[in-house]
Amino acid sequence: MDYAKIALEKHKEWKGKLDIQTKMPIASKDDLSTCYTPGVAAPCLEIHKDPKNSYVYTGRQNLVAVISDGSAVLGLGNIGAEAAMPVMEGKCALFKALANVDAFPICLNTQDTDELVNIIAALEPTFGGINLEDIAAPRCFEVEKRLQERCNIPVFHDDQHGTAIVVCSALINALKLAKLENPTIVINGAGSAGCAIATLILKMKLGNVILCDSKGILDPNANLTAGKKALIDKVNLEHKKGGLKEAMEGADVFIGVSAAHVVTKDMVRSMNDKPIILAMANPVPEIEPQDALEAGAFIVGTGRSDHPNQINNVLAFPGIFKGALSVQATCINDAMKEAAVKAIASLIPEEKLRPDYIIVSPLQEGVSDVVSKAVSQAAIDSGVIRQW
Amino acid sequence: MDYAKIALEKHKEWKGKLDIQTKMPIASKDDLSTCYTPGVAAPCLEIHKDPKNSYVYTGRQNLVAVISDGSAVLGLGNIGAEAAMPVMEGKCALFKALANVDAFPICLNTQDTDELVNIIAALEPTFGGINLEDIAAPRCFEVEKRLQERCNIPVFHDDQHGTAIVVCSALINALKLAKLENPTIVINGAGSAGCAIATLILKMKLGNVILCDSKGILDPNANLTAGKKALIDKVNLEHKKGGLKEAMEGADVFIGVSAAHVVTKDMVRSMNDKPIILAMANPVPEIEPQDALEAGAFIVGTGRSDHPNQINNVLAFPGIFKGALSVQATCINDAMKEAAVKAIASLIPEEKLRPDYIIVSPLQEGVSDVVSKAVSQAAIDSGVIRQW
Repeated sequence: MDYAKIALEKHKEWKGKLDIQTKMPIASKDDLSTCYTPGVAAPCLEIHKDPKNSYVYTGRQNLVAVISDGSAVLGLGNIGAEAAMPVMEGKCALFKALANVDAFPICLNTQDTDELVNIIAALEPTFGGINLEDIAAPRCFEVEKRLQERCNIPVFHDDQHGTAIVVCSALINALKLAKLENPTIVINGAGSAGCAIATLILKMKLGNVILCDSKGILDPNANLTAGKKALIDKVNLEHKKGGLKEAMEGADVFIGVSAAHVVTKDMVRSMNDKPIILAMANPVPEIEPQDALEAGAFIVGTGRSDHPNQINNVLAFPGIFKGALSVQATCINDAMKEAAVKAIASLIPEEKLRPDYIIVSPLQEGVSDVVSKAVSQAAIDSGVIRQW
Repeated sequence: MDYAKIALEKHKEWKGKLDIQTKMPIASKDDLSTCYTPGVAAPCLEIHKDPKNSYVYTGRQNLVAVISDGSAVLGLGNIGAEAAMPVMEGKCALFKALANVDAFPICLNTQDTDELVNIIAALEPTFGGINLEDIAAPRCFEVEKRLQERCNIPVFHDDQHGTAIVVCSALINALKLAKLENPTIVINGAGSAGCAIATLILKMKLGNVILCDSKGILDPNANLTAGKKALIDKVNLEHKKGGLKEAMEGADVFIGVSAAHVVTKDMVRSMNDKPIILAMANPVPEIEPQDALEAGAFIVGTGRSDHPNQINNVLAFPGIFKGALSVQATCINDAMKEAAVKAIASLIPEEKLRPDYIIVSPLQEGVSDVVSKAVSQAAIDSGVIRQW
């Protein structure tokens, strides 16, 4: 299918993908007096008396902002705020369709870190959670960190954590199926997604990590970004040197969040037995699945919906926010992320795992409910429920 | 009816008055690929190529932000951002119900003028228009002025202009019915609404204005706010002195946007023949309608829905924004405001005017269409259509 052509036609027809409907009829003077003046003064006063009532009388209890500065949109790069909007609307549509969470898209015409932090922090009273989206590294790290410090609602950069969570879910199931323990995992791409994947793998003790950027295995003596610097002492414990080729020799797992066709068949052949290849460059993966399989890969996953094992963060974010909102969590902490990883992995019982079925479809019924329950329990257990 | 009690119950049941729905099914991989990746890249690129396409492929073409800082909410005062939200949600519900315009409520947790301007300006790529709401004077004047200078979309402080427009509509019909020309009009209350009413009355040459604040007739030698200062040379051309009582002696029209029961029967009796009383203090008017009629008032209007002649800016804002959005107007200028005034007044044919019927109900079918058509034509005629 020519998705570009269809998408253009459909977007023109839709005139925006979201429809802001009212929950009540407004047909009589009584309706007006209940939803607007004079009746509306009563919930206003209740919230003024006790701000926790903002979660009782307004939509905030089930409302997420999807916010971008348009600086790193899909694989398209810095296309700006206006051009980022179709993605943000799409993400909001997925929140609603998959988890019944209301989400509203906001594209900001600034790419200044301080301004982004101040603007988004000022939006806090309106929302129950903030999903940051398609903000370029390294700005995304600082924006998220500073906002989470300032805000009492969850702030979550999905390109980092959503991706990391779903990759770890797929990885857990792949390692189970391959009966691999303590694997060596090569991650190619050390931007926001690559660094978040490495961090979560290490946090969950899923294996040893060798992190590569476009210059090859991370060099401790190079001028590293903050994201890479935070990881440098925890990755590549055997002090390998060289390019991606050298990194992959003898490794068990390849995880790609980099660029089209940077992995060759020979590189797959140089890996350990039963290589696991998660090649998620979009829209063209690091190696075509067929080539990887021909070169001996045991399991192949990509970001694409037209191949088996689609690693898609649509599996994570709707349920994660649903769970966080349902208990008024103040953040999405590591315990909640790990709970989401395990919940998504658990959606396939061990006996049903197959090399071409290590992760469920994002459209499978009930995914967000399972994720939401695990995440809200983890929030309660780790004590990050908002205290009023 | 006890609207406070009903409103509290209903607001709890509604869990927010707005529902963000998707316009398309998301049930298959093809759906996902059309509304999200990879298809969504196509409209993004079209907008990146030419920003005017943001009005073709996104919801912006029919989307208004209703934005408050919570500093002057209804008659409740500075109750803050969280507590303002029920009003903003209600306003958005009215936009949808009365004009099919999508509107989203935003409450900001800052009351600093510079911050408000910077934050709201940064939101521009997301919206087609901005309705400022319940922002205290004099900050509201500067915020609106500076935003309109910076933004290419309409920025409209409804508490000023929406109120002024509907008051002028009622006034036109009242003067027609009373066969009054060149009337003397006392406006009591010189905050954002009072100043805007005075400005529009003068602009439309509907009469002479005597403006009073809580200290009485405006004194040119007093320390005046910017809003009052801008009007001081245009009002009270006969240089009357004194309080509201002195102002009303011999006047034809009283317009109140002030406080409960500040007008007495004697003050109405001191007015000219066929006094017109528009007493809009909320929820308790400057004089009870029955008292005004007993004292000889020819026409009485209030802000209340349980009396005849409800002067309600719900008559104006849905159609005004609908009209501005439909032609991509860059602002809502005087010509557009005057067109709205005349359109609302015209909804009652001259032969149907009665003292208790000078203005239609905001729920009357088709109001927003009539207003929208007049406003969009005025935008075209006055040349404020966005050029790309």
